[in-house]
Amino acid sequence: MLRFGILGAGRIGNVHARAIAASGRASVGYIADAVPEAAASLAGVVGARTASVADVIAASDVDAILIATPTDTHADLIEEAARAGKAILCEKPVSLSVPRIEACLDVVEKSGVPLMIGFHRRYDPHFAALESRLRAGEIGDPEIITITCRDPSAPPVSYIARSGGLYRDMMIHDFDMARFLLGGEEIAVVHALGGVMTDPEIGRAGDIDTAAVHMQTASGKIVVITNSRRATYGHDQRIEVHGSRGLLRAANIHNTTVELANERGWTGDMIPFSFVERYQAAYTAEIHKFLDFLEKGEAPRASGHDGLMAQKLAEAASTSLTTGEAVRI
Amino acid sequence: MLRFGILGAGRIGNVHARAIAASGRASVGYIADAVPEAAASLAGVVGARTASVADVIAASDVDAILIATPTDTHADLIEEAARAGKAILCEKPVSLSVPRIEACLDVVEKSGVPLMIGFHRRYDPHFAALESRLRAGEIGDPEIITITCRDPSAPPVSYIARSGGLYRDMMIHDFDMARFLLGGEEIAVVHALGGVMTDPEIGRAGDIDTAAVHMQTASGKIVVITNSRRATYGHDQRIEVHGSRGLLRAANIHNTTVELANERGWTGDMIPFSFVERYQAAYTAEIHKFLDFLEKGEAPRASGHDGLMAQKLAEAASTSLTTGEAVRI
Amino acid sequence: MLRFGILGAGRIGNVHARAIAASGRASVGYIADAVPEAAASLAGVVGARTASVADVIAASDVDAILIATPTDTHADLIEEAARAGKAILCEKPVSLSVPRIEACLDVVEKSGVPLMIGFHRRYDPHFAALESRLRAGEIGDPEIITITCRDPSAPPVSYIARSGGLYRDMMIHDFDMARFLLGGEEIAVVHALGGVMTDPEIGRAGDIDTAAVHMQTASGKIVVITNSRRATYGHDQRIEVHGSRGLLRAANIHNTTVELANERGWTGDMIPFSFVERYQAAYTAEIHKFLDFLEKGEAPRASGHDGLMAQKLAEAASTSLTTGEAVRI
Amino acid sequence: MLRFGILGAGRIGNVHARAIAASGRASVGYIADAVPEAAASLAGVVGARTASVADVIAASDVDAILIATPTDTHADLIEEAARAGKAILCEKPVSLSVPRIEACLDVVEKSGVPLMIGFHRRYDPHFAALESRLRAGEIGDPEIITITCRDPSAPPVSYIARSGGLYRDMMIHDFDMARFLLGGEEIAVVHALGGVMTDPEIGRAGDIDTAAVHMQTASGKIVVITNSRRATYGHDQRIEVHGSRGLLRAANIHNTTVELANERGWTGDMIPFSFVERYQAAYTAEIHKFLDFLEKGEAPRASGHDGLMAQKLAEAASTSLTTGEAVRI
Repeated sequence: MLRFGILGAGRIGNVHARAIAASGRASVGYIADAVPEAAASLAGVVGARTASVADVIAASDVDAILIATPTDTHADLIEEAARAGKAILCEKPVSLSVPRIEACLDVVEKSGVPLMIGFHRRYDPHFAALESRLRAGEIGDPEIITITCRDPSAPPVSYIARSGGLYRDMMIHDFDMARFLLGGEEIAVVHALGGVMTDPEIGRAGDIDTAAVHMQTASGKIVVITNSRRATYGHDQRIEVHGSRGLLRAANIHNTTVELANERGWTGDMIPFSFVERYQAAYTAEIHKFLDFLEKGEAPRASGHDGLMAQKLAEAASTSLTTGEAVRI
Repeated sequence: MLRFGILGAGRIGNVHARAIAASGRASVGYIADAVPEAAASLAGVVGARTASVADVIAASDVDAILIATPTDTHADLIEEAARAGKAILCEKPVSLSVPRIEACLDVVEKSGVPLMIGFHRRYDPHFAALESRLRAGEIGDPEIITITCRDPSAPPVSYIARSGGLYRDMMIHDFDMARFLLGGEEIAVVHALGGVMTDPEIGRAGDIDTAAVHMQTASGKIVVITNSRRATYGHDQRIEVHGSRGLLRAANIHNTTVELANERGWTGDMIPFSFVERYQAAYTAEIHKFLDFLEKGEAPRASGHDGLMAQKLAEAASTSLTTGEAVRI
Repeated sequence: MLRFGILGAGRIGNVHARAIAASGRASVGYIADAVPEAAASLAGVVGARTASVADVIAASDVDAILIATPTDTHADLIEEAARAGKAILCEKPVSLSVPRIEACLDVVEKSGVPLMIGFHRRYDPHFAALESRLRAGEIGDPEIITITCRDPSAPPVSYIARSGGLYRDMMIHDFDMARFLLGGEEIAVVHALGGVMTDPEIGRAGDIDTAAVHMQTASGKIVVITNSRRATYGHDQRIEVHGSRGLLRAANIHNTTVELANERGWTGDMIPFSFVERYQAAYTAEIHKFLDFLEKGEAPRASGHDGLMAQKLAEAASTSLTTGEAVRI
Repeated sequence: MLRFGILGAGRIGNVHARAIAASGRASVGYIADAVPEAAASLAGVVGARTASVADVIAASDVDAILIATPTDTHADLIEEAARAGKAILCEKPVSLSVPRIEACLDVVEKSGVPLMIGFHRRYDPHFAALESRLRAGEIGDPEIITITCRDPSAPPVSYIARSGGLYRDMMIHDFDMARFLLGGEEIAVVHALGGVMTDPEIGRAGDIDTAAVHMQTASGKIVVITNSRRATYGHDQRIEVHGSRGLLRAANIHNTTVELANERGWTGDMIPFSFVERYQAAYTAEIHKFLDFLEKGEAPRASGHDGLMAQKLAEAASTSLTTGEAVRI
């Protein structure tokens, strides 16, 4: 059974470690975290030992490194793990800097280790089913892709200040989803709008909280994305593809199917507020797809190149917001 | 009972004339059309007489002129009717030229006659209810407005060639809807994308058939619009407003509530394919609101100024498509 | 244009008279009502004259009699109109007594006049579409039919006391719908449950307000009906047919498609509370089908025989409630 | 960590054993099955050993016995486990014979061991949420409860022949759900309809495949249940409660939220066909609730008494079908 070393025992490290432990196909050998108590606590849950980052990467009984540390450490850790010959599953993004990503992917390529990027939405059963039906031709060619993503509430302003901004931190998932749905055709032009609508503190930190980006491929396919850092009604996650022969859409999932009717109308249940809850099945599927990649040689659904290309779109959107002009790629 | 003279007995002239006849509050006195048979046929249905355009406008027993002729005649006819002291309900647009609209509105203003523009969607019970609940504060301030409009199929290319292009001919309704939902705050910047995806003939005629526009107000409110000239699934008409305290959306209406479940899934009924069918209730309500405007002095839901402003947005979108750059208004 | 004489200017007489006046295919000549003001008021709306019941029936310029008077007068009026050679559209039921219905239908048959019974739900676009798709074989043979009918609130107890009871007054529509959906196969056995849950006054008047009936045909097809006199959420009207190859159902219609999402969930709009509002389109279609019956010879969707058979089922249910036992027909 | 001995390694034994192994709160010690390969295979999956039924029950390192053997062995095995002092989680039903259940429950009571019956639907997140909101008073008093249960296809006729019939084998779950939703008020009268619509072989085996039961409590509350052994559209599982202040319903869950729109309508995804898939979350929750019962002393959501009462309703329905008359309890 393949053994993981996990770097980072925060919220997302927890999600991954538990998914691995419950997979029945792999185990967690070691956990490293800057906060020893966090590492120890998670290690206890998944039956692993704690160790330093360097020791985890070097450990001879570790086959794969899962990187769930702060963003600014990702590229260095990927390179170290690559040099140590480990398979790598890294949370997005590889880096906030496109050149840094390129350099890092060079190291990975030279080392020949398998690398997969944690764009978990590609593994969501609903979105994955939509993509697969789109690829099967159910609606012909995609022509207009609409991606809606709204978070219940913003992360702390301290986090936002070093996040690289909404496009790189939040919309990055939608850029990746757009590319996933386009199925190989790349974006040629990007125009971005953004504003501060939910919290002036976010503006003072140099970021926006409400945004729209629309983009187009060379053949004319259009992608429209909207984001907000605040939605009173939950973690709003929808995709819709208008194609030449029909429309496919994936709606929000609701906590239960229970509906109440009374003199105020017909009220369906809430949708999840936490991304962990919303994407539980996606995180589980992601681990299995990573194992399929390593064990069966199936192509990773999100490669290092995908990580790079999403980052380039985020970069273009950031530039567009600053200049007010469209950016050609 | 107020009496109408109707100019134009085509599809939309028919819709209006029948709505007037069934209103119980007004009647159709005269119908004029370049095709005498068309005028006669409609006159028969609604109990009116036929006459020339000039005679209809001049008729002493006509209180209001409904203009449903080709677009390039609207401004002239409005001016003639205004000079004759008639109340006017004119189909959109007043003109494809912004300066021509401004000149025309001047004439109307000087003549002091009531003028209402036929943006029928403002009268749709679903959209009107959404707007009214938005105004009532149910979701706080609007932050992201998403408008989806797709037609089952394109009009003849001959029509498209002289239509002013998709933004002026089709998206004009969505520009107006955006302004209706914004409730007074005007758009400051517009960026447009467009392509030819459904029929190369449309491209050869100098137009596009698939388009996205996003826009922003000075305070940061965002509007996202997508259009397609071809939707296999019907006349797709949806609006959604994400606000500071929640979300309001109006979905498509289906022909019936009947649903079929079998080994292929759970299939709801089609949505209407014809805008006449989709907006039946809207056209009826529009006539009543025009009568309320004339008889009770209620402000028209869509004024000449609204017609002008929507045209300016269509103009900006057309410019943006040509230059590839955002247009500030 | 065919001319109607209308007997009864109450709520349902109003609905019918207005539908006739708006049909474009028939007019209302006379209106009779025990309350002269009611007759006069409705006559003013639809452009008719008032007259006594006898005079309306005798009028040589009346082609069809629409009976919308209190139930206990229906059978007598049908017979009088039949003897006067008029076509008849009579609100359900012909009579609360099965033998009286049979005698009345004999008179009609001998007179040879056309008779249609006002089971408006057969003309509802949603239910009619379901029935038509069922007949077309979309789900094979029907096996379990579920009919849900709940009223927002009970009529006055004074009305209930002489209504014949819930099965004859309210569930009669569902008995007819069951027969409509069964398409010719008759019910063989009926068992009824009932209770007083909403208002003890209804119990003191000798009736129930909450009821379930299930029934079976000789071949085994099952029909399940539930009724309540009180639903806080509106006029609940649903049908569902489980068949050998699938399921067809018609859901409630909502006032608008507007949905609100916030921290309390996702709330769809109310459904209509008034049956007039809910069945507006059905009443219009009913008039047209009656005219098709008279003018084109199309079989009436609900005949006198249908009125008789629904009454027999109501009778059986009433007996079952009293005895506690199933009733074989 | 509490250790289970599992009797029966068939489909449902598998479901439970895996749920226990994945619970993180208990383990599977032993598995017994008449087919040694089945026991060995499941034991391999969950890390248990195989043993004879007697040895599992006697094992000193087993705390709880999960009984998933054929129905006719349940009562004997419960008694043996009770005498051995083990906690018991037994699949429904305890026995097809009401007196045998009563005798068995006596033994359990005297032995003082904890017993829970495997009515898994009480643990389904959707149904449990509905029940909990009903108990919280969201719709006032329940007045009409509608339970819909349809299986994609019938079990083998050989199974049906010794199943005790549809009411005891299939509708038993709905009888239990009815009692769960009624919250303590017992059924006073039962009337059953049934027929053979899907497969004449089922009729030849002495059973029915299509059924309706309606029931009433002493205070007048009504329960309506329909069942079919064949639904082309999946494992149809719905409940609805009409109450004095509103309506609560739990709809089917669909495999994904993906919807396709094209010229055939708007098609939502299938619902699960397998009860294992449909009730995955319910089976997991059931194990946790059993552990809460043992470890925290929480009352079991379905007790031996609940098993007895559901069986009495199945008995009454069977009698009603035979006699054609209502059965008072």
